[in-house]
Amino acid sequence: MNIDEILSSPTAAAEREGPSNKIVWSSRVRLARNITNTPFPGWAKKSVRVDAFQKIRKNVLKLNKMKGSFETEMDQLSTLEKQILVERHIISREHAAKSNGSGLVLSKDESISVMINEEDHLRMQALLPGLQIKNAWLTIDKFDSQLEKGLEFAYSKKRGYLTACPTNLGTGIRVSAMLHLPGLVLSEQINQIIQAVNKLGLAVRGLYGEGTEALGNLFQVSNQMTLGETEGDIVERLNKVLLQIVDHEENARIKLIDSKPKMLYNHIGRAYGILANAHSISSKETMNLLSLLRLGMDIQMFPGTSQALINELIIITQPAHLQKANDGKLSAEKRDLLRSDLLRSRLKEVDRPVVLDEINIKDEEKSQEQG
Amino acid sequence: MNIDEILSSPTAAAEREGPSNKIVWSSRVRLARNITNTPFPGWAKKSVRVDAFQKIRKNVLKLNKMKGSFETEMDQLSTLEKQILVERHIISREHAAKSNGSGLVLSKDESISVMINEEDHLRMQALLPGLQIKNAWLTIDKFDSQLEKGLEFAYSKKRGYLTACPTNLGTGIRVSAMLHLPGLVLSEQINQIIQAVNKLGLAVRGLYGEGTEALGNLFQVSNQMTLGETEGDIVERLNKVLLQIVDHEENARIKLIDSKPKMLYNHIGRAYGILANAHSISSKETMNLLSLLRLGMDIQMFPGTSQALINELIIITQPAHLQKANDGKLSAEKRDLLRSDLLRSRLKEVDRPVVLDEINIKDEEKSQEQG
Repeated sequence: MNIDEILSSPTAAAEREGPSNKIVWSSRVRLARNITNTPFPGWAKKSVRVDAFQKIRKNVLKLNKMKGSFETEMDQLSTLEKQILVERHIISREHAAKSNGSGLVLSKDESISVMINEEDHLRMQALLPGLQIKNAWLTIDKFDSQLEKGLEFAYSKKRGYLTACPTNLGTGIRVSAMLHLPGLVLSEQINQIIQAVNKLGLAVRGLYGEGTEALGNLFQVSNQMTLGETEGDIVERLNKVLLQIVDHEENARIKLIDSKPKMLYNHIGRAYGILANAHSISSKETMNLLSLLRLGMDIQMFPGTSQALINELIIITQPAHLQKANDGKLSAEKRDLLRSDLLRSRLKEVDRPVVLDEINIKDEEKSQEQG
Repeated sequence: MNIDEILSSPTAAAEREGPSNKIVWSSRVRLARNITNTPFPGWAKKSVRVDAFQKIRKNVLKLNKMKGSFETEMDQLSTLEKQILVERHIISREHAAKSNGSGLVLSKDESISVMINEEDHLRMQALLPGLQIKNAWLTIDKFDSQLEKGLEFAYSKKRGYLTACPTNLGTGIRVSAMLHLPGLVLSEQINQIIQAVNKLGLAVRGLYGEGTEALGNLFQVSNQMTLGETEGDIVERLNKVLLQIVDHEENARIKLIDSKPKMLYNHIGRAYGILANAHSISSKETMNLLSLLRLGMDIQMFPGTSQALINELIIITQPAHLQKANDGKLSAEKRDLLRSDLLRSRLKEVDRPVVLDEINIKDEEKSQEQG
C-alpha cells in the first residue's frame, strides 16, 4: 500500500457505514504509550529518537493487523500529503509538522493508525464509522496488548502509563466521536448541550480537535480525564452521553420539521442553491453548506441522492485534497474557483430539493403564535 | 378602466420595451403646475382644495389622451392600492399619504399620469420604457399645452411657472431615468460615476427617489435645476449624460466578462441558486438578486428566458403587489414566505445558468497578475 492509494480512495472512506451514522459520523479511541528508559520525543536527542522510531516501527509492522499497511517516515511525505492525512483525521496537525525520526503506520483498511514520535513515542488510534466507540476500544485494546509483547511500555503501578503530557497520564486513553448536530444548532440548543456535556467532565471541540472551530455543525466530544477510571468505564460513560446527544439531535430535527419546516427548508434550499451555482467558494462556506445538504438528505429532501456523495464532497473539497487532485500547490483564490467547479459538476446529478408532502407542514405562523 | 385592471396587469408593464433598455429601464418627465389665484395645496383650506381638484380633474379628463383613463380621489383607494401605485412609480410616496381633495388620473396605456393636489396642484408625468426622455418630454409638453387651454397656470414672466417649493420654480420640470448599473457597482466604479454626475448638477438617487436606497443596482438620475435653462436644454443635457453612463456601464460589463468572468458568474450563479431555492426571502434581498439575474440575462447566461419574466418578478415580489395577490395585509414574515414560494415556482421554468464558451474566458489569475 502506498500513499497514492490512500489519497485516491476518498470514495471508499465516504462509503463506510456504521450505526447511527446520520448523527455520529465517526468514533475513535486512541492510546498514548511510551517506551521504558527512553526520553519522550520532545526531550530525546535525535539519535535516540531515530532508534526508538526504528524499534517501534519494526514491532508495529510485525502485527497481523498491519499486513499490507502503509508506512512512512514523516520527511518522506510532501506538505500536501501530510495535510491530506490531517484532513482525513489519520494524523494530528502536530504530527504533520514532524520530519525524520517521526513516522506513521496505517492499516490497509485505514481503521488503525499509529503515529510514532508525535508527543509520545506511540499514539495508536482506531477510527470507525458511526457510533462504535466500544468496537473502537476493543480493536485498539487488542492491538495494544499484542504490541506490548514486543515493546516494554513505561508504566508505574501508582500512576499507570506514563505520558509526555500529564493530561494523558494513567490510561493514556482519548475516546471521541464526531457528531453532526445541525438540528441542535438551528434550534439554538447547542450551547446548552455543550455546557451539560462539559459538566460531565467531557470536552466538546471543533472539526480538528482542540482549539479549532465547529465548522459544518460538526462537534467532537471526548473524555478529558485519563486517570482514576478504567478504560472500560470511560468508554461506557462516553457511550451513554453520546446516545443521549443523538436522542437530543433526533428530537431537535423532528421538532424543526414539525414546527419550523419553512425555516429548515430555507436553510437547506439556499445551501443547495449556492453549492450548485457558485463559481467561487471557500472551504469554510463549503463545509457549512454541505452540512445543511447532508441534513436535507437525512430528512429525505433529496430522494435518490446517496449520503456517500456528500461525505465524499466533504473530503475532496478540503484544501489539500483539492490541490492534490489539481497537481500541486494553488493559491486560496484558485482553490475557491476549482472547489466551486467541482461542486457544480458533482451536484448536477442532484435535483432541486423536494418539499415532501408527507412531512406534513403545519402553519408555521400558528406554532409561532403559540410559542 | 378601473384600479383592478391596473393591478392585474404587471405582465403588460413588464413587457413594454424601449431603446437601450438593458441599462435604462425607464424614462420620465414630470411638470409641476399650479392654478392662478389659488393657494398651493399645502396652504389651501379644504373647500378651496376640493374645488381646485374638481376643476383640474374635469379639464384633464377632457383631453383626448385621457380617453378610457383611470381616475380616482385618493380616499377611494385602500392603503394597499396606493402602495401598489407607488411600487409602479405611478404616484409618489407623498401622494399616497393624501386623502380626499387629492387625486390621480392615469391614461389607459399608463404612460401619462397626473397627480392632483400633491405638493403642487398638478404633477403630470410621462413614463416610457427604455431611454426615451426626449419622447417623454414631447409627450408631456403636448399634454401640458393642451391642458393650458382650459386651465390658467400660475406664471411669472421673471420666474416662470410658480411652484410650492422653490426647487421646482421656473420650468417646473424634472427629467429622470432609472438606470440599472450592476457592471459599475461590481467593478467598483459607481461612486466615481455618481460624483462625476453630481458635478454636472444632476442628482443620483435610489429606487424610489429622494432619500431612498439604491436597491438592486438601480439608480435614478435627474436634473436638479429648473431655473435658467429651457426644458429642451435640460432634456438635451441629461440625454447626453445618460448616453455616457450607458457607455460606461456597457464597458464595465465587457471588462468584467473579459477579465473577471468567474467573479461575475459567481455573483449571478449564487443569485439564481438562492432565488430558485429559498423558502423565505425579503423584498430587499429579492431586488438585489433579481438585479443580478437580469444582468445574467443581458449577458446570455439564461438562454431562452425572457427579460419580461424578470421585470415581472421585480414588480410582483414587492410588498404591496404580493399582499394584493394574496388577499390582504400580511406580516413581513408571511410575505417573505409567499415571496419565496412565488420565486421558486416561477423560476422552475428557468434552467441553471449556462457559462457560454463563446464568452471566451481568459485565465482570471493572469489578468489579475497584470492588474
